[in-house]
Amino acid sequence: MNALFLSDKLELQEIPKPAPGPEGALVKVLMAGICNTDLEIVKGYMGFRGVLGHEFVGVVEKSADSTWVGKRVCGEINFGCGDCDACRRGLSRHCPNRTVLGILNQSGAFAEYATIPLSNLRPVPDAISDATAVFVEPVAAGCEILEQVQIQPDSNVAVIGDGKLGLLISQVLKLTGCRLCLVGKHSRKLALASSWGISTALVDDLPSQRFDLVVEASGSAAGFTTALQMVRPRGTMILKSTYNGQLRLNAAPIVIDEITIVGSRCGPFPAAIRILQQGLIQVEPLVDQVYPFGDALRAFEHAQKKGTLKILLQINQRD
Amino acid sequence: MNALFLSDKLELQEIPKPAPGPEGALVKVLMAGICNTDLEIVKGYMGFRGVLGHEFVGVVEKSADSTWVGKRVCGEINFGCGDCDACRRGLSRHCPNRTVLGILNQSGAFAEYATIPLSNLRPVPDAISDATAVFVEPVAAGCEILEQVQIQPDSNVAVIGDGKLGLLISQVLKLTGCRLCLVGKHSRKLALASSWGISTALVDDLPSQRFDLVVEASGSAAGFTTALQMVRPRGTMILKSTYNGQLRLNAAPIVIDEITIVGSRCGPFPAAIRILQQGLIQVEPLVDQVYPFGDALRAFEHAQKKGTLKILLQINQRD
Repeated sequence: MNALFLSDKLELQEIPKPAPGPEGALVKVLMAGICNTDLEIVKGYMGFRGVLGHEFVGVVEKSADSTWVGKRVCGEINFGCGDCDACRRGLSRHCPNRTVLGILNQSGAFAEYATIPLSNLRPVPDAISDATAVFVEPVAAGCEILEQVQIQPDSNVAVIGDGKLGLLISQVLKLTGCRLCLVGKHSRKLALASSWGISTALVDDLPSQRFDLVVEASGSAAGFTTALQMVRPRGTMILKSTYNGQLRLNAAPIVIDEITIVGSRCGPFPAAIRILQQGLIQVEPLVDQVYPFGDALRAFEHAQKKGTLKILLQINQRD
Repeated sequence: MNALFLSDKLELQEIPKPAPGPEGALVKVLMAGICNTDLEIVKGYMGFRGVLGHEFVGVVEKSADSTWVGKRVCGEINFGCGDCDACRRGLSRHCPNRTVLGILNQSGAFAEYATIPLSNLRPVPDAISDATAVFVEPVAAGCEILEQVQIQPDSNVAVIGDGKLGLLISQVLKLTGCRLCLVGKHSRKLALASSWGISTALVDDLPSQRFDLVVEASGSAAGFTTALQMVRPRGTMILKSTYNGQLRLNAAPIVIDEITIVGSRCGPFPAAIRILQQGLIQVEPLVDQVYPFGDALRAFEHAQKKGTLKILLQINQRD
């Protein structure tokens, strides 16, 4: 089968079609999305080598449990061992022995087929299109924030970063009714947020107000400093973006203003699927282009261009 | 009056005796303690110039409210404006217009007299000696942690830093019955903690276990990295020490392991006074030497020597 493989460089390779174990499914990948984490991995983040890709929708082609066969699915990306303390407490996303699809010791979804543990599969309702289903994973990452901190209609919230993740997080947080401001650099992207009724500000023209909660989703070390300037004393900063590199900061304001910083990674798929099924947020306006899989390298080049939103890969057609 | 004044250098100077306003008291300072923050201020932290000192006990000599006169007191160090949102919500420690005794725009307690707002004064019960009373401020800073996070008897807690602050915090946290380990570099200080029934570890021989809560009280940037290594996924790190300088860190583990970092500064004096009055923690074993005020510069030299615990200044004798 064809797969987008990262070794010294990224290339389309012919590799053997995988075979699922007794607890797994062979999924024929329909569509997959290029995430900033993929771009960071290509730059060296996580030291990953292998098939990239963790945002996908597909159809189960083979499984020991035949009830799954033919179902359209997406999949939680952390594959826990099922046997450790974390897994037993329902925290398989933090299993110390986990692999992570296309990120850590696990062949990813930028391939014609991927194997996914049955316990990670989530059926995709018919109301959700393939292109929308690819967003379940990043929308779940936005929902994670709501599991970690309490946001009230009266909360003052800022999201830093008008990229894909920032635009998704903004929409998810807006559901709480909070006073929300998206801070970014790109007028096209901020205009998209405005069209959804979200207040926006340019990073060069920050509001003087300080916020109860600031979400750092800019994907850059500079965003951390901006977030720290914007959060009120005793406020909370959510650290959402992962990138390759070091952060330099003056830690004194964190102590003096008693700021809480909460690292936030993957979130609950069922919540994301419900939100998307109900049409509560808009994800398809984020799609800049869909590339056929044969053009995957061009798709990556496009995704790497500054200002690009979501690039999708059409890997297989639905039967 | 005589005062320890920081300008280009630290020196004992004769300056005018201050006069309290209608809402303040003139306090004759009996004893004061040299804190690591004082040492950092001398190195440039906060850019403070003036009379240093924020840990003290004294006797009210003059006040518009005569009920205070003659009372032995200590004082909360953040002087709020009383008029802003933060002050109205009872958060004067975070008043944006505050001054801070001997730290920010407020003449400190390393002087024969200091003026303190009446609302900041706390009476010191007879059961608490002068030397112990000087510790109310740093013990309160330890109590602050218990206001910010919930520590249970079953929690695994580590404190990094066997200096004054780490030894005080360890004792305060031990009151919760938690499983506690103090991590440090100095066998003399760790032995002191052991004598109080606290488990200890050398920083070069860290326990492999990961902790629910790690308190960073080492006063150095290296402590942050150690703390991050020791905290479990979804665990909490308390950032307690303030220092002059930049922190360099890889932020990815904070996101990947969804760590919460909580900045923690000044705490509740009434809680600290109760704990000291009941003899629940030991503070006088931390006193390495008491210097007469005329030897204040020698006292600072002593306090700056690696491995020194608390140095006190005897500023006035009790009448």
